[in-house]
Amino acid sequence: MSKISVKHFNEAILSELPWGSDLGLRLDEVSHGKAVMRLPYDDRSTRPGGTISGPHMMLLADACMFAVVLTMIGDVRLAVTTNLNINFLRKPSQSDLIGTGNIIKLGKRLAVVEVDVTEESTGKRVAHVTGTYSIPPAAGES
Amino acid sequence: MSKISVKHFNEAILSELPWGSDLGLRLDEVSHGKAVMRLPYDDRSTRPGGTISGPHMMLLADACMFAVVLTMIGDVRLAVTTNLNINFLRKPSQSDLIGTGNIIKLGKRLAVVEVDVTEESTGKRVAHVTGTYSIPPAAGES
Amino acid sequence: MSKISVKHFNEAILSELPWGSDLGLRLDEVSHGKAVMRLPYDDRSTRPGGTISGPHMMLLADACMFAVVLTMIGDVRLAVTTNLNINFLRKPSQSDLIGTGNIIKLGKRLAVVEVDVTEESTGKRVAHVTGTYSIPPAAGES
Amino acid sequence: MSKISVKHFNEAILSELPWGSDLGLRLDEVSHGKAVMRLPYDDRSTRPGGTISGPHMMLLADACMFAVVLTMIGDVRLAVTTNLNINFLRKPSQSDLIGTGNIIKLGKRLAVVEVDVTEESTGKRVAHVTGTYSIPPAAGES
Repeated sequence: MSKISVKHFNEAILSELPWGSDLGLRLDEVSHGKAVMRLPYDDRSTRPGGTISGPHMMLLADACMFAVVLTMIGDVRLAVTTNLNINFLRKPSQSDLIGTGNIIKLGKRLAVVEVDVTEESTGKRVAHVTGTYSIPPAAGES
Repeated sequence: MSKISVKHFNEAILSELPWGSDLGLRLDEVSHGKAVMRLPYDDRSTRPGGTISGPHMMLLADACMFAVVLTMIGDVRLAVTTNLNINFLRKPSQSDLIGTGNIIKLGKRLAVVEVDVTEESTGKRVAHVTGTYSIPPAAGES
Repeated sequence: MSKISVKHFNEAILSELPWGSDLGLRLDEVSHGKAVMRLPYDDRSTRPGGTISGPHMMLLADACMFAVVLTMIGDVRLAVTTNLNINFLRKPSQSDLIGTGNIIKLGKRLAVVEVDVTEESTGKRVAHVTGTYSIPPAAGES
Repeated sequence: MSKISVKHFNEAILSELPWGSDLGLRLDEVSHGKAVMRLPYDDRSTRPGGTISGPHMMLLADACMFAVVLTMIGDVRLAVTTNLNINFLRKPSQSDLIGTGNIIKLGKRLAVVEVDVTEESTGKRVAHVTGTYSIPPAAGES
């Protein structure tokens, strides 16, 4: 079972990420080790061509990874990204983007998470992300 | 010599990145294969703790990589990021962030770029980024 | 359907990778966009502790990614790795390692592949890899 | 000043990496936070075309990163790679490869290291690597 709720993440945590809440970033679903996050299409997030920019895909993926980690360790704000690697796969349509994050490994000190970024309009994958989180002492699992 | 000017990048290119220009993102210096870009400190870019968020460091690095590539191939908007890898080194202070990008390799089809992200207040490195750009046919060098 | 056979890969391709064939590296299964490769346990591949070393996990993953790409474009030796990112998850047991590679995206110029490296003795994931291949002109798909 | 000597690394540490010593892998120089490592050209390390294979560049880079970390924390065998990201830049000549590693950040729990892989015959860069090491408790610096 997830150690955070969708409601708690969207209210208590996103409220501290003004750029995220301002863009309508929100968590749609969580379960233990899994999170689904949405970045609504917004003209302010575009690049030439009118689609959501690369940095906004990274923003969605980073927030999604954070949610995945919190589903397993609870609301530990001190968990921080240490590495993020993203491959951009195709130019998205003018569509909401969905980040689907899954835990790869939760260790005592590090968590490794994978996020698929898809466009909602077609379900096609537009980016693939892997990242590492540093877990504060006592919050991790072996 | 750079194939784009600071003025051209800041006026013609950033004007198409509303989220960048809105945050005051701007190119400070360019030379052939090198670009220095600035992300001003802004309360809207923060995370809990009041420092500039990870996604905003990625935004700065991605735009800086793009500028580095354009210094060598000119204003080719179709150059797109294919891979970005970032290591977060330390929590920045409440300071402008400076991205210093250098070309590692410009090939016919791919460019590899490295970006150091430092905080201006102390000059300390807060993130290190490497990325790959896909170069449209005919724009690259061997 | 795969555009290469297990037999062809193991005989014609691995024979040109002396370090791979010497270690008993071999392809076990292929289908379109998927490859399963094995690195047998060997005392010569170990690190302190007697388990297979990190570089040998990278070797397995890189060869597996190559096989995945060839299942889709056929025996195109000029396809070369341009980027590889690996997260090491846990120390493997003294066991054969299995690389299971799946295509993420095959484009005209680049292929993105994901490889899970597991230890056969327990089925546990020991490393996770994503990589990019450069596809020679005319061999790729859109 | 380096906390390990070239002699100690080449004798005490490489002797536990049979695949490295068998290929003649050796440390050439160390200073605090820096290491220069050599992989001699060897027919057994080649790929089609007769140049040193990608996996052998990764092997050189990983061992070089390890040496860089040990110059700062001493002979701590439990330091392990957690992430490695490599960009392949050009096909090397039939030449020894030189890995020049520099520390980017040594923290309490993680070290980030950068390695340039060059071919000795021309001095050209053939690969660029960044990696993360996990530092055992009490061995790191703040």
